[in-house]
Amino acid sequence: MSMTLSEVCELVGGELRGDGALVVERLAALDQADEGSLVFAFDPAAVVQAEASGAGSAVVRTGCQCALPHIVVPDVRKAQSVLLRAFQPPRPAPTGVHPTAVLGEGVVVGSDPSIAPYAVIGAGTVLGARVVIGAHTVIGERCAVGDDTILKPHVTLYDGVRVGARCTIDSGAVVGADGYGFTHDGGQHQLVPQIGGVVIEDECEIGANTCIDRATLGCTRIGAGTKIDNLVMVAHNVRTGRHCLLISQVGVAGSTTLGNGVVLAGQVGVADHLDIGDGVMVGAQSGVAKSAAPGQRLMGTPALPGIEFHRMMAALTRLPDMMREARRAEREARAAAGQESGG
Amino acid sequence: MSMTLSEVCELVGGELRGDGALVVERLAALDQADEGSLVFAFDPAAVVQAEASGAGSAVVRTGCQCALPHIVVPDVRKAQSVLLRAFQPPRPAPTGVHPTAVLGEGVVVGSDPSIAPYAVIGAGTVLGARVVIGAHTVIGERCAVGDDTILKPHVTLYDGVRVGARCTIDSGAVVGADGYGFTHDGGQHQLVPQIGGVVIEDECEIGANTCIDRATLGCTRIGAGTKIDNLVMVAHNVRTGRHCLLISQVGVAGSTTLGNGVVLAGQVGVADHLDIGDGVMVGAQSGVAKSAAPGQRLMGTPALPGIEFHRMMAALTRLPDMMREARRAEREARAAAGQESGG
Amino acid sequence: MSMTLSEVCELVGGELRGDGALVVERLAALDQADEGSLVFAFDPAAVVQAEASGAGSAVVRTGCQCALPHIVVPDVRKAQSVLLRAFQPPRPAPTGVHPTAVLGEGVVVGSDPSIAPYAVIGAGTVLGARVVIGAHTVIGERCAVGDDTILKPHVTLYDGVRVGARCTIDSGAVVGADGYGFTHDGGQHQLVPQIGGVVIEDECEIGANTCIDRATLGCTRIGAGTKIDNLVMVAHNVRTGRHCLLISQVGVAGSTTLGNGVVLAGQVGVADHLDIGDGVMVGAQSGVAKSAAPGQRLMGTPALPGIEFHRMMAALTRLPDMMREARRAEREARAAAGQESGG
Repeated sequence: MSMTLSEVCELVGGELRGDGALVVERLAALDQADEGSLVFAFDPAAVVQAEASGAGSAVVRTGCQCALPHIVVPDVRKAQSVLLRAFQPPRPAPTGVHPTAVLGEGVVVGSDPSIAPYAVIGAGTVLGARVVIGAHTVIGERCAVGDDTILKPHVTLYDGVRVGARCTIDSGAVVGADGYGFTHDGGQHQLVPQIGGVVIEDECEIGANTCIDRATLGCTRIGAGTKIDNLVMVAHNVRTGRHCLLISQVGVAGSTTLGNGVVLAGQVGVADHLDIGDGVMVGAQSGVAKSAAPGQRLMGTPALPGIEFHRMMAALTRLPDMMREARRAEREARAAAGQESGG
Repeated sequence: MSMTLSEVCELVGGELRGDGALVVERLAALDQADEGSLVFAFDPAAVVQAEASGAGSAVVRTGCQCALPHIVVPDVRKAQSVLLRAFQPPRPAPTGVHPTAVLGEGVVVGSDPSIAPYAVIGAGTVLGARVVIGAHTVIGERCAVGDDTILKPHVTLYDGVRVGARCTIDSGAVVGADGYGFTHDGGQHQLVPQIGGVVIEDECEIGANTCIDRATLGCTRIGAGTKIDNLVMVAHNVRTGRHCLLISQVGVAGSTTLGNGVVLAGQVGVADHLDIGDGVMVGAQSGVAKSAAPGQRLMGTPALPGIEFHRMMAALTRLPDMMREARRAEREARAAAGQESGG
Repeated sequence: MSMTLSEVCELVGGELRGDGALVVERLAALDQADEGSLVFAFDPAAVVQAEASGAGSAVVRTGCQCALPHIVVPDVRKAQSVLLRAFQPPRPAPTGVHPTAVLGEGVVVGSDPSIAPYAVIGAGTVLGARVVIGAHTVIGERCAVGDDTILKPHVTLYDGVRVGARCTIDSGAVVGADGYGFTHDGGQHQLVPQIGGVVIEDECEIGANTCIDRATLGCTRIGAGTKIDNLVMVAHNVRTGRHCLLISQVGVAGSTTLGNGVVLAGQVGVADHLDIGDGVMVGAQSGVAKSAAPGQRLMGTPALPGIEFHRMMAALTRLPDMMREARRAEREARAAAGQESGG
């Protein structure tokens, strides 16, 4: 993969400064650049680093000067995304089914599969076309995996899990383990059998070591286009809308529903049986204990509308000084009263 | 598995309304029901959904009317648990030892085993009767696994771990990794060897991707009947009592002891070397920094008795208005003083 | 492994009380001791337990009396660390390459390897001398693993990950998954290809089920001697300095830089694109939202300097009483004013 600086410029819709015939062989970070590299300078300080990096060319922000052949764009990050897509290595050719893969009875494998060593696929599972199954990935019985979906190494799907098309599931993710539901009897806990399923719709990403539990009855459901980061917990019977973002270490408790386009920042917890409206955004580490109307911005534990949270934090920050001041005033008042009564 | 509505009614101890000879073939969620399905309506709104669901019958709460043949019970959730147990699929027949499983020297396998493809079991390990070992599960040397215990695919037990009878360990759980103990010398950290073990007593559940570290000396111990959810961290030398509940993403630091029946809600952290009494319950996301007497209800970070926490949060919520009011009163007092002195 | 009590005494630099010829066969916890055992008593109560434990000898703190043959030291924990190192079992002899391991084209294996059953190593990967690769561990293509490094069972390294010498990576860790970077277009999210790498320098420990994502461009980097606990999330393009400690369930968001010797306690979250100075220590469950100067001690969410945090918490604790008092004073003032105006 390589292109000329002119071609790069056309792709990102920028303004060319310098030799358009220059060949760009790769994109690079500022500390790993060589003559064939194009680097990205997100601010004026980075332009100086870019000039000293050994890179052959750069993308810089409107208004920045640069001594290298460069392209000027209003939004360097957007240009970077476009070029990362252009320069990404092509998807490898299908590798077929490795002889050590164990396929149960009645497994259906679509066209052009890539099934890596030691994959284990349970009876009755159906794989779509061009599916990639990583080494050691275990798929239970009666599962379905859609076209072009990639399961990285060491993924586990329990029985009956359904994954849509064009999804990626990262290593260590566990989909379909029993939900954490117990009845309590005389101080003891007995598991309630979890006989429902999990449905992951099309174009979802499920991060490494993330867990999505199966439903008690019915399905735990991840809406199309939802992107879930690493180490996230999605409990039984949760339903997310389309295009949600669940950032690392988030936990969503049982039977809670997220609308479309909900964003939960890192380490957020959402309690069980809540209804979180479309477009709700929750700040990092917040704890959501009540249902939320569409479009709310929430922060804190228990989570409040952002404006209330900031007002409360501002007051809390002033509190120690205010208390000291109040005690001083009280002491003065007492002293004055003492003088009066003693005078 | 199927039974008549009369049989279902007898099982849950409810009141039958409609045709007791109706055959119930399965339990279903409201959005997946057909004629052979029995559904559960937890509230009046759900009764309407049930009637429209296509289900053949329903379980409803005392006081609810329903157009379908139905059973009336005071506690729908309890009835659901009973029926989920009755309708759960029978445990599959033992599958024996798959030829690709690798068993070390001196491994003892009990009667009627199910050992799936690519399981690896270290030398000297002893497995009880009817044990189920999932695909790719790795068991170290000199481990013990009790009768009827199930290790799902991709579980890892390090050397010397002992798991009791009738336990379930979910995929991705790692039991017996070295505790996080270091000595610090001139800004560098050197691992303290962790030569103790882990004991999981009978009837425990260990969730997916949960980690239980081995002890420095002695044992990390999970008490009988304790249920641990997904992505939980149990550090070295922790001891839990019997019948504890540790909900998802909880972390318990080194050498802390939990009494019997302790409940830690989601994302709770408990500091090291603490003593948490029997029956203590800690609210979600709380951080426990001090030992707690039996029966306490704790909330917040640092965790306080629930009543103090709620009182503090109520005060905090009123704080911004109180401060604004105080500033207004001060301005008025100044203005009044100014008028007096200027008058 | 065994030594006399005199030899033990010399090793820890303590004072011997009793028979120096006594043979110490093992170190033990107080509840697992026998005649051949040496136990550790960290406080006077533990000395009583030690005497009743059946142990043959003990290490006790300066000033404690003990009826067993014993060694007196000023710091029992330090003595324990020294002895744990002395008594730890020797590293097992290399086991070679198991015939079920799958090695891709051009894999280079150093001298004296131990590669366990079902390990899968991608094309072009280079392993140093005396490397230990656990059962089922999957290493991608073009990776490098340094001398004497141990990857436990079920580790996953994606393509191009570089691990230094003398590291340990625990089970379930996932290194090199795609960073969580998306562009947002009309409410939809599209993955930004992550074509950078991960570098783990020498003498690092990476805990069980921890995730370290690959960089967008350049490298995510873990500095030499850094110890990362279980279930930690390190996002794309994060860089840690040397000798950092990241305790269980910590999350560090994208592009944040940690200096040398930074300590993040359990469940801490650090926001993206921050610069955390050398030696910064952050208390458990804190949320760091701003960059921090070297040496700061931070606590709370959002994190404050420890002294400010404690001052704020102290004020907050007094707040409910202060408010009640203020309301009482106001009522009295009103009552007094009413009497006056009515009088």
